[in-house]
Amino acid sequence: MELTGIQTATVITHAELLQHWLGHRALTRRVIDAFPEKELMEFTIGGMRPFSGMVKELLAIGAPGLRQMVGVEVQALYEDNLEANSKANILQLWDEATELIKVYWNQVPEEKFHDKILAFGQYEGTISSSIFYFIDNEIHHRAQGTVYLRALGITPPYFYER
Amino acid sequence: MELTGIQTATVITHAELLQHWLGHRALTRRVIDAFPEKELMEFTIGGMRPFSGMVKELLAIGAPGLRQMVGVEVQALYEDNLEANSKANILQLWDEATELIKVYWNQVPEEKFHDKILAFGQYEGTISSSIFYFIDNEIHHRAQGTVYLRALGITPPYFYER
Repeated sequence: MELTGIQTATVITHAELLQHWLGHRALTRRVIDAFPEKELMEFTIGGMRPFSGMVKELLAIGAPGLRQMVGVEVQALYEDNLEANSKANILQLWDEATELIKVYWNQVPEEKFHDKILAFGQYEGTISSSIFYFIDNEIHHRAQGTVYLRALGITPPYFYER
Repeated sequence: MELTGIQTATVITHAELLQHWLGHRALTRRVIDAFPEKELMEFTIGGMRPFSGMVKELLAIGAPGLRQMVGVEVQALYEDNLEANSKANILQLWDEATELIKVYWNQVPEEKFHDKILAFGQYEGTISSSIFYFIDNEIHHRAQGTVYLRALGITPPYFYER
């Protein structure tokens, strides 16, 4: 009971933050799925990457970033090596990453969230600041994808539906 | 000392979440400022609002949403009433809102973050879920603004600089 009291006296609990991220990941999956295959791989605005390129970055960050936090290994970012060459492949990689995030999450208890880390061997921060960066970066690139969708005449999934 | 122990055993502390939000607000301000005046008020892609319209939404949410949480009053969203008719005016409203957020923040202690509220009289949630929504919504619309900037040939401020 006392632990519960401590938990709910925080701005967001460990379990809530996972649900928060998973809600965002579900929305990002719907945004990926809203793209026609060709436009997912090729459509761009203003010299930016196609949305598939942004998703490859997200795939290289989320689960691999958490894996480092559970002590498996420190890897550099490897997005260029990802074989995300079709919409079906990207969605499959996305779903696999989501499952890995659920597994790793419970191996990073809240007591560790203020431990200092060097994410991907190069970005200074704490586990907490790194995870918030991962989530924020996903929101950021997904939002850019929604502008691509609008430019293509496609109504994006609603932001508030998770 | 015990309180400090409790604080840092959370995924993010009350003080850190404010700094996190203020970092985002500083970045959003730089994105607003990167627009030429005319394009801020008029440029659109795919039938979306100009970036000024999105910022008006953010102005109607952040400080007014927190004001409700400190018990001042419950107001409906009022973005249509905001006189944000120039870049200078928008930046001034942004800075005023940031100062209000700093003041209100310390009147909403973490013990209240799991209280249920009806944000703006209509959105069910907790103080915690509402504040995370406010921040995420800001990241979302700011990112859409960065696509507008790229389409205008302007390099946006870096996402990772807060």
